[in-house]
Parts: sequence; structure tokens; C-alpha cells
Amino acid sequence: MKPINIAIIGMGRIGKLHAKNIMTRMPYFKLVKITDLLPDNAWLEEFNIPFTSNIAEIFDDKNIQAILICSPSSYHAEQIVSAAKAKKHIFCEKPLGLTEREILHVINIVKEQSVILQVGFNRRFDSHFEDLKNKITQQFVAKPHILRITSRDPTPPPGDYVKHSGGIFLDMSIHDFDMARFLIGEEVVEVQAFGNALINNDCHQYHDYDTALIHLRFENGTLGIIDNARQASYGYDQRIEVFSNKGCLKSLNELESHLQSWTKDGVLAAKPKYFFTERYADSYIKQLESFYHCIHSHLSPKVTAFDGLQATRLAIAATQSAKSNSPIRVSPKLALEEAFF
Amino acid sequence: MKPINIAIIGMGRIGKLHAKNIMTRMPYFKLVKITDLLPDNAWLEEFNIPFTSNIAEIFDDKNIQAILICSPSSYHAEQIVSAAKAKKHIFCEKPLGLTEREILHVINIVKEQSVILQVGFNRRFDSHFEDLKNKITQQFVAKPHILRITSRDPTPPPGDYVKHSGGIFLDMSIHDFDMARFLIGEEVVEVQAFGNALINNDCHQYHDYDTALIHLRFENGTLGIIDNARQASYGYDQRIEVFSNKGCLKSLNELESHLQSWTKDGVLAAKPKYFFTERYADSYIKQLESFYHCIHSHLSPKVTAFDGLQATRLAIAATQSAKSNSPIRVSPKLALEEAFF
Amino acid sequence: MKPINIAIIGMGRIGKLHAKNIMTRMPYFKLVKITDLLPDNAWLEEFNIPFTSNIAEIFDDKNIQAILICSPSSYHAEQIVSAAKAKKHIFCEKPLGLTEREILHVINIVKEQSVILQVGFNRRFDSHFEDLKNKITQQFVAKPHILRITSRDPTPPPGDYVKHSGGIFLDMSIHDFDMARFLIGEEVVEVQAFGNALINNDCHQYHDYDTALIHLRFENGTLGIIDNARQASYGYDQRIEVFSNKGCLKSLNELESHLQSWTKDGVLAAKPKYFFTERYADSYIKQLESFYHCIHSHLSPKVTAFDGLQATRLAIAATQSAKSNSPIRVSPKLALEEAFF
Amino acid sequence: MKPINIAIIGMGRIGKLHAKNIMTRMPYFKLVKITDLLPDNAWLEEFNIPFTSNIAEIFDDKNIQAILICSPSSYHAEQIVSAAKAKKHIFCEKPLGLTEREILHVINIVKEQSVILQVGFNRRFDSHFEDLKNKITQQFVAKPHILRITSRDPTPPPGDYVKHSGGIFLDMSIHDFDMARFLIGEEVVEVQAFGNALINNDCHQYHDYDTALIHLRFENGTLGIIDNARQASYGYDQRIEVFSNKGCLKSLNELESHLQSWTKDGVLAAKPKYFFTERYADSYIKQLESFYHCIHSHLSPKVTAFDGLQATRLAIAATQSAKSNSPIRVSPKLALEEAFF
Repeated sequence: MKPINIAIIGMGRIGKLHAKNIMTRMPYFKLVKITDLLPDNAWLEEFNIPFTSNIAEIFDDKNIQAILICSPSSYHAEQIVSAAKAKKHIFCEKPLGLTEREILHVINIVKEQSVILQVGFNRRFDSHFEDLKNKITQQFVAKPHILRITSRDPTPPPGDYVKHSGGIFLDMSIHDFDMARFLIGEEVVEVQAFGNALINNDCHQYHDYDTALIHLRFENGTLGIIDNARQASYGYDQRIEVFSNKGCLKSLNELESHLQSWTKDGVLAAKPKYFFTERYADSYIKQLESFYHCIHSHLSPKVTAFDGLQATRLAIAATQSAKSNSPIRVSPKLALEEAFF
Repeated sequence: MKPINIAIIGMGRIGKLHAKNIMTRMPYFKLVKITDLLPDNAWLEEFNIPFTSNIAEIFDDKNIQAILICSPSSYHAEQIVSAAKAKKHIFCEKPLGLTEREILHVINIVKEQSVILQVGFNRRFDSHFEDLKNKITQQFVAKPHILRITSRDPTPPPGDYVKHSGGIFLDMSIHDFDMARFLIGEEVVEVQAFGNALINNDCHQYHDYDTALIHLRFENGTLGIIDNARQASYGYDQRIEVFSNKGCLKSLNELESHLQSWTKDGVLAAKPKYFFTERYADSYIKQLESFYHCIHSHLSPKVTAFDGLQATRLAIAATQSAKSNSPIRVSPKLALEEAFF
Repeated sequence: MKPINIAIIGMGRIGKLHAKNIMTRMPYFKLVKITDLLPDNAWLEEFNIPFTSNIAEIFDDKNIQAILICSPSSYHAEQIVSAAKAKKHIFCEKPLGLTEREILHVINIVKEQSVILQVGFNRRFDSHFEDLKNKITQQFVAKPHILRITSRDPTPPPGDYVKHSGGIFLDMSIHDFDMARFLIGEEVVEVQAFGNALINNDCHQYHDYDTALIHLRFENGTLGIIDNARQASYGYDQRIEVFSNKGCLKSLNELESHLQSWTKDGVLAAKPKYFFTERYADSYIKQLESFYHCIHSHLSPKVTAFDGLQATRLAIAATQSAKSNSPIRVSPKLALEEAFF
Repeated sequence: MKPINIAIIGMGRIGKLHAKNIMTRMPYFKLVKITDLLPDNAWLEEFNIPFTSNIAEIFDDKNIQAILICSPSSYHAEQIVSAAKAKKHIFCEKPLGLTEREILHVINIVKEQSVILQVGFNRRFDSHFEDLKNKITQQFVAKPHILRITSRDPTPPPGDYVKHSGGIFLDMSIHDFDMARFLIGEEVVEVQAFGNALINNDCHQYHDYDTALIHLRFENGTLGIIDNARQASYGYDQRIEVFSNKGCLKSLNELESHLQSWTKDGVLAAKPKYFFTERYADSYIKQLESFYHCIHSHLSPKVTAFDGLQATRLAIAATQSAKSNSPIRVSPKLALEEAFF
């Protein structure tokens, strides 16, 4: 097994997470370079990672076969294009671009250059959700009637983050839109979002929401509901329920421990794992393993650029819907056809 | 404790349920007469209950102090008015009338006659939901951010029932609308309903839905979501979840037994209790105990005619919303003011 | 359905429980008389029950067909004999007598008089345990390898009660011995008990235990373990587990409610129902229904005098074992043969 | 962080598990050599591990600072002595020797040579049990009244393994004896074991048991019960319960997934993780991390040779008890004093 040389653009929380995983858990990748406008030198030294302040070095380096893009969202499209033109395979955190037009452009370039582009919807690689997907399609529920996704963060982001986040639907719900499409295996044709700012002034101030319900209608008739909240005191609440008249499949939370304490006050169990780095730890590794496997065997990625496009379109539709307080139709195929034909 | 003489109008499923409960579990009521257009003679004989085919006998009987109205919905308003004018206290199954105007009329008459009118929203007397209500208001969640009600029947009604049911929102969701108002303690100002017919042709044929999601917005900003389905193979699914950033309260299903079987196939537990007569058995008794107590001590009923009115208005709004595919505003106070001032 | 006239001997906690059940929940019995050396007049008045201070009146009354014996244990044998000779059917709380010899005598008299004698092992009528019994014998576990019974009271009895209780094995574990025989359907051939006094001085003072583990070996090779404790702060802990290499069946506790509270401290659920009157409420009614059915249809009782004998013999063996710190052999058939042949 | 050079003696299942963990998850150890009488060449090649057939090379190599002993039990004592005399730190799988005398000898040599000897009771490093231990000692239960350990394997070992295993108590229960001492923090003064061969003929043939209950009495009065079985069709059943009158702490099984399927047959959840490599995967890593930390910082190991001795003495006592069908006293301090003074 010869490792693939990989570089990382961006040293924020998620860039560092990937870097550490590659160095300690993934012998099939070799991390050869990392870049950022604001390098964290202490961290670089601790893990002994080669750094460059010149991003062009990465694109130009013939020894680098793959690039992980973990920079701020506004740079994604441009960096994907540069990487694709340099014939690098690309793993990019969501979103692929800030607008539908930008993402369509990216998709066309990637297609022309015949490189692999995988989007960082890591939750698809969570073993519980993979198991759920299998049970839905193969054995249990012919056609789901109701999909319910609960996705609540333990702690709200700072106000400054909210300001530049693009709003809750593009920043947070986008993962749930992707999960909804992944599980049902159909496109969403209608979105209606309801939001409110109930926690503190941050969201209110930036015309954003910290609490949201998003209704989805799928092409096959399935009804979906996503509920999002920015602050759940009891941890990261990540549940999915798929219902049909034949039965109901539920993916429950992972708890911090399997200990119970029975006392006069009741039966106390542990709360859910704290946040995404705890709850989805394994999925970050598995999505990169899958990326490696696709490069190595010349396969299409399990999460395609089209998946990235569709989740973004749903997030944009939800944003419009909440503002206009009306359902927004989404034409599922048009975008793809424009992009590829 | 001198029992109160009571009569029942209607010998359908719910009329018989009340009759049997009164005879075997409630010494504080004496069932003195029952009437129906189509009497079930075998049942009358088995339980030895005095029957009359003449409803006027009930209204005219000075020894009867209270009446339970369990007739078809279209008779409710007229029978309430007759009973009130005869100075009987009234317990009426939902709805109080078929239109807002009819219910407002009923409310005025009942007020004039100074009799007690309690509506049959029995779930308010379920010990789990009472417990939930207490925890919400007193100790736990200052202001709920999200309310989630899951209410799924085990088996769909026959097509003929669907035809005359008034639609899923008036027939089934009305209990959930009442529960929503009860738990949050605020009025709903906006309703949006999404429906589909996914089980069989019955609902489709009668332009009704068997699967529905209903979004609610409360006056205080709480967002609500009700999910209804007419057929859940695993039994009567009755769950409620109340979320705020401080925590989350969940009322889970009651299961048929506390037995678990651990085998190579997994861990198998019992499914939820089959239907409302099993799940809410105690609440039917407790709501009549409360009715007795109100008569005995000259108190206002715990479920008022106004509660009956509001739940009906929300059901009508949901029906309109699903048809027009748009949110419907509900002005919470107007109706009441019209009725009383 | 003509009700059977019944009388109760003893107005302690259990006598009153039966009396109230018969009056409010059991139309097939008519409670015609109650007796006690120390009548509770307030209670008699509230429920309007005919009292006699002369127990002979009950035995002599030709209209009384059945008697419930709820007196102190030391009177049981004598009262059963009197009742049997008066041709009354008998329901007797455990134990049937204080010694093996006394119980054998009782069994012979009852047999001679051809009356029904049912012992008050109410737990056999608990729906969870009935369900468990069915699953063991019919569908699931060919031959159990391990039986585990956990039976812990919420609160210890007063010291004075302990003094006259006959010890934890005769007073408390006797129910678990009966349950063990009921579930496995085999006799126990060896008992070893381990006890300690860990809660307070009451048990220590009277050479009794408040905490005990009792090992059982069944004729068919099944190993059993009962764990008893007199004080579980979290309520009445009543669990049973039956294991074989094919799987494991568990009967879990019934909790006080189905509410969960998820907060930063964890997930809090309700504790088990408080004590036997809450946990086994239905079984008290069902055992008397069964008693009625046996009288009415001339059937053998579901809990026989032999069951009463065997549970007592196991309790006596456990007492000896704990004192001698050695296993005690129990010859399962001898007693029965002596008694009947 | 300079890695410590380590060698492994033994390439059976557990030796390979340690080798793989060290190579892929533990940068603080460098695996420099492995030895075995019967090398698995394919495996060596796949993982590219330096092999020697001459064990003396390992003892003589000055660059090796630590040795993992994973050979068959009968070699343990001799290899510990050789390693200690070569001034290597030692991690040894249980047991440290086949007899009490042998282990006492080992302890003395290790003490003379001032090397670290840690025993492979990996379960002490399981996060659930660590959490349980903390809750027992610090916050919750002053003095436990009852300890219950359930430890059942998913599948029985082959007959040939049973023949040489030393019996269920030395082979399997020894982990539970260590856990019991760890959790209660007191020595056991009395053991009584009850066994049976219920699965197949293997155990019967070799006078061993496949099903066992082991009663423990601790110095402080706590009563303990271990239940062991060689075959649980539903997976590796690893539960612990600690009870006092103040409450009850339970460490539940880890399940294979968090998915539930609700259907007409009931609610189906996943079964427990399959076996020790799945259930205790993290503990194998954490015990070696702790070993590293002790070497690096000159600390006593968290699982001492004395712990290894005591668990073995309890296993020997259980074996005697089951054979003689009588309780065996264990004098907790004597052995230690003999060994060290």
C-alpha cells in the first residue's frame, strides 16, 4: 500500500482535525504540506507538519496528488478550480461555492479535468446512518412516509461567526439536507422553513435564526421535517426517524457512557456526546478512507459535486422560504442538466 | 358521597366506553338512561342499562343532572343547547359544533344557562402529559422553543368513515391541537399543514390525507410540529417532546409489556399499546372524575368550551392551509371576544 | 353472573386492600362480612362494610361460600382448617402454616373436605411474569441455564415487625422462591443463602438479615440466584432474568412515568413504582378473579397448597443455610408423598 | 516524545492485537521485535514486523526497554523472571503463574530488580468501569451492599482449549475477580462457586463448567455475585451493578448500533458488541498508554503483581469450592506478607 501525498488548505478547526487524523490514523495518506493565511505555529511545531505560506506551491507541486480544502467558504470555488486545473484530486468541505452559478461552474471544470471531487458531508459515513440507509432501501420500508431529522448543536457560535455564516440554513441545516437526500434517495421538490431567534440577540441582530423547522416534500411524496437549534444544553442531539405504515426506524443519540444511576431522584443516564468531533469522530476517518479508495481505484466519489450542489440549493430555498413565509418549489433536475449538457 | 344521575346520548364506541367505565369504576355517577337511534340490544342486556328511544325523555327528566353527549358530530351543537336549556351539566365529545359560528352560539347558550360544559379532550388527563405540563411550567423550561407531537394511529378507519370524518385535521389532529395549547399555555397564531395520501386509495378518493405534518407558530414564538399518520404497524404512537435551550422533556410511548428478549437477532421489546382505549384508558376515567368534581363543587371545567372552540379553529385553519399550500394566520382572541362581549 | 358471597378474616393492610378491590372492582364477589380482633371502625364506616367480632359467625354462615384469610401468619393453619370443615373455599395469604408439619396437616384436611385452597402468591398473576413464563416454556428457552430474581423493597419494616417476621427468607424471599418454581417449572434441590445486616441495627439485633443472596440449584440443572434487600432508595426493584445459551429474557421494572428530562446533568427518567400495592396492583385483582373462576367452574386453583408448602420449605432451608454457612439439600418429592399417600 | 522500544513474546490472538495497536495507534511505543515458537509468516509480512525465533535475543537486546508477554500461561513466570533480570519493564497477560507459590516468586524477583510489572487486566481501563469506580468511591454509594457482575461469552471455546484452560474460574472468571476487587476496593474473604455443564459435552468431559455462579463475601461485608456462561447467543454480555440502600449504579452493555426498528413484531434494537476485541477495544490501548506513562514517569503500575496474585487466589478458591460444594475462606493479607517481608 503506497500512501498518496496530500496537502491541506486551511488550518481552522476542521483542517486541524483532518491533519491529526491523517497523521495518527491513516497510513494510506501522507500529509506533505499545509497552508493558511494565519498559521498556528505552535500547533505546526507540536505535530511537525511542513508549512508553506504560498498556496501556489501546493498547486505546482507534482508530488502532491490530492488536496483537502478547509478554507473559509468564500475561497472554495476558486481553490477547487485551481486544484482541478493542476490535476489534483479534491476533497472539499461544504459548500462548493456561495451561489448555484458558482457551483455549476466548479462542477464543469472538475468534469473537464477528470479529477475526483468529494464533498465533506461526513455524516453519510457514520455507521448508524449507513445502517439506517441500508435498512430503508433493502429490507424494511418500501417508501418512507415521514422523515424526521433532529439536529441540535450544544452551544451557539459567537455572534461574529453568525454574521458571516450565511445563515442557519446554509451553515447548519445543509448537513441535514444532504442527509435527507441520502436517506430517501429522491430529490426534494418543495421546501418551507420556519425560523425564530429565541436564545439571545446574536441571531436576531443579524437577521438569522437560532431555532428552525424545515418542511420538505420529496418527489415520491415522502414528507420530511428537520428541526434545528443552536443550543441544546444536554449535548449534540442527532436523531433520525424514518416512518412508513410498515414500521419506523430510529437512529438514536450516542450517549457519553453506558452508566445508569438509580436513586430516589429517578434513573439518571449520561447525556449525548458533546459535539461533532465526538459524535462523528469515526465518520471523518471513514470519509477520507473512501476518498483514498476512489482515487486508488478510479471510482466516483460517494459524495459527489452534484450532492454538494443540491444541498446548497435546498439551503438557499429554505432561506428564501423563511424570509417570504411561503413554500418554495425546487426543480430537482434542471440545475444538473444545465451543468452537464 | 351521593352519586350524580347521568344519562348518555349515543351508543357508539365511545358512548359504550363511558357507560362501562361509569358502571364498573365510578361510584360517584349513576347511569340512569342511555339513548341512541340504533340501540345495541345485546349490549344493553348484558350490562342491564335502562334505554329510551326518546331523547326528550332525557332532557325532561328532572332526576337527571348531567348528560354525556357521544352522538355523531353533526348533532352536538343542537343537543348541547337542548341540554343546557334543560339545566343539565354537559360533557360533550369533540367537536362542540361543525363551524366556528355554531360553536360560538353554543358557548353563549351555555353561558346564559350557567351550566357546566366540559369537552372530551381526555388526553389532558393522562398522567404522563399532566406530569409533562407541570414540568414545563413550574420547574424546567422557561419558554419552550420547539414542541413536537407525534400522533399516529395503528390502523386506518374504513373508507366510509373517512368520507364523513371532516378530514384528518378535524377528526384526528384536533386532539393534538388541544394538547399543543394545553402544554404551551399560549395561543397559536399561524398554522401550516402539509398532507399526502400514501397508504391506500381511501383518503385520496375523498380528497383527504392519511399522512400529515402541521407546523404551528405560537404567540410567544414557540415553534410547533405535529406529525400524524393513519397507520403505524407497531401500534399507537403517542409521543411529545418539548425543547428549549435549557433542556428537553420527552413523554415516551407506553409499551405493551416490560419484557425484553435478547437473541442473536437483537434485543426485542414490546411495541406500544394498541390504540386509544388501551393507551388512554385511565384518562377516560379521570376526565369524568374531574367533571363530577366540577359539578359537585361548582367549579369551571378543566377543558372549557373555549378550548373546544380553539382546537376546532386550528383544525379548520389546517384544512385550509393544506388546500391552499400556504400558511394561515389565526387571530387568537377575536372569536372569544365576539362570543362573550 | 351471580356473585359469590365472601368474607375476610383480618383487617390489616392486605385485608383492606382485598376488601377495597372487591367492593370497587369485582362485581363477581360480594363482600358480606369482615372480622378482626382490632377493628378499624373509621375505615369500616367509610366503606360501609358489615363487621363481626365473632369469627365463628363467618364459619357458621351458610350464605358465605368463600373466605379470605388475611390474619397474622400464626393463625393461618387453624383458620384454614375451620373454614375447610365449614365447607368454605379458601384464599389464604402466605404462609399456610409456620412449619412443614402444620402445612401438611392443612393440606390433608383441605383434601378431605374437597374445598378449594388458593395461596396468595399474587405475583404469578402479574402480566409481565405470565408473559415471561409463556415465553420460557413455549417459544424461547428450551432449558434455562441461569435464573436471576432481583427483589428489593423500597423501605425496611420497623424493628418490631422484623422481630416477629420469621426472618427475611420466610417473610420476603418466600415470594421469590415461589416465582422461581413457577418460572422454571421444576423443583429446587439445593439452597444456599448468604446474608448480612448492612442497613441499620434492626436486623442485626434480631439475628436477621436485610441483604441476602440465595443460590438455588434446580432438579434439571438450572442455577438460580435471588438477591434481596430491605431498602432500595429508588423504589421497589422487581426484575427477573432467565438465561440460556439460546438467549436471555428480561422482565424489567415498571417506572412511575414515561417522562424523560434531558439536561446538562444527563438524561433523567422516573424511578420504579414505589411498592407492591403500586407495582402489583393488577395482580391482586387477577388472582381473585382466578379464585372466582376456580370456584365457579370447579377447577384446581392456579396456586395450590403444595406450592405454598414448597415455598415455605425453601424458605426454611435458606434460613438453615445462612445460619450454618453451608448448602442445604431439599428433597423435592418426599413432603408431597407424605402428605397425600 | 521519544518512543519506548518494546518487544512482544507470543503471536497468538492477543499478541497480534497488541502488535497491531502499537503499530497503528501508539506512537509512544516502537515495536522492535516479536518472537514465537510458531511464527505466522503471512501476518509478519503484511505488517512488516521484525521477527526472531530466538527469545534470548530479546532479553539480551540493550535497546529493548519493555516486553509484552503474550505466551501460553505456563511460560509466564519463567519469562517474567528472565525479563526482570534483564532489567526490562514487563507487561504480562494474566495469570502471572500457575500457582500461588510461583506468583510469589515472580513478585519477589520483580521487586529485587526494581522493574515495572503490569498485569493485563484490561477491563480496569474501560471508560465505563472507570466511571463506575469513580462514582462508587467518590460520590454515590458509601459502602456497597451488593455487587453483581455478569460476564458471558458469545461462543464457547473448542474442547481442546477447555482441556488446557485450567477451568472456567482460572480462565474466564479471573477477570471478574479482578474487577470485583477493583470496584469494591476491598479483599474477598469467602468464595463459593456453583457450576454446571449445560451447553455441550466439552466441559462435562473435562470436568469443567460452562455455566457458573460465584458468591463472594468481602472484608467490609459487601456481598458479591458473579454469573458466567460460555455461550450467550446475543453476544458478549458484560454488565455490572453496584447496589446500596442509597441507590444502584449500573454499567450496561454497549450495543452494536443505536438503531431501533419498530414493527408489528415489537421494537428491535441491536445486540451487544460481539466479543472482547469489540467491547474492550479501547481498553487495550489505554492499558498500554498507562504502562508507557508508568515507565516514563517511574510510577507504580495501575494493575500490580499483587492484583494478579489475588485474582488467581480467588480463582483457585472458586475451583476448590465448586468441587467440594462448600464455601472457601481466603485470608486476604497473608500471601502478601509472605511475599514482601
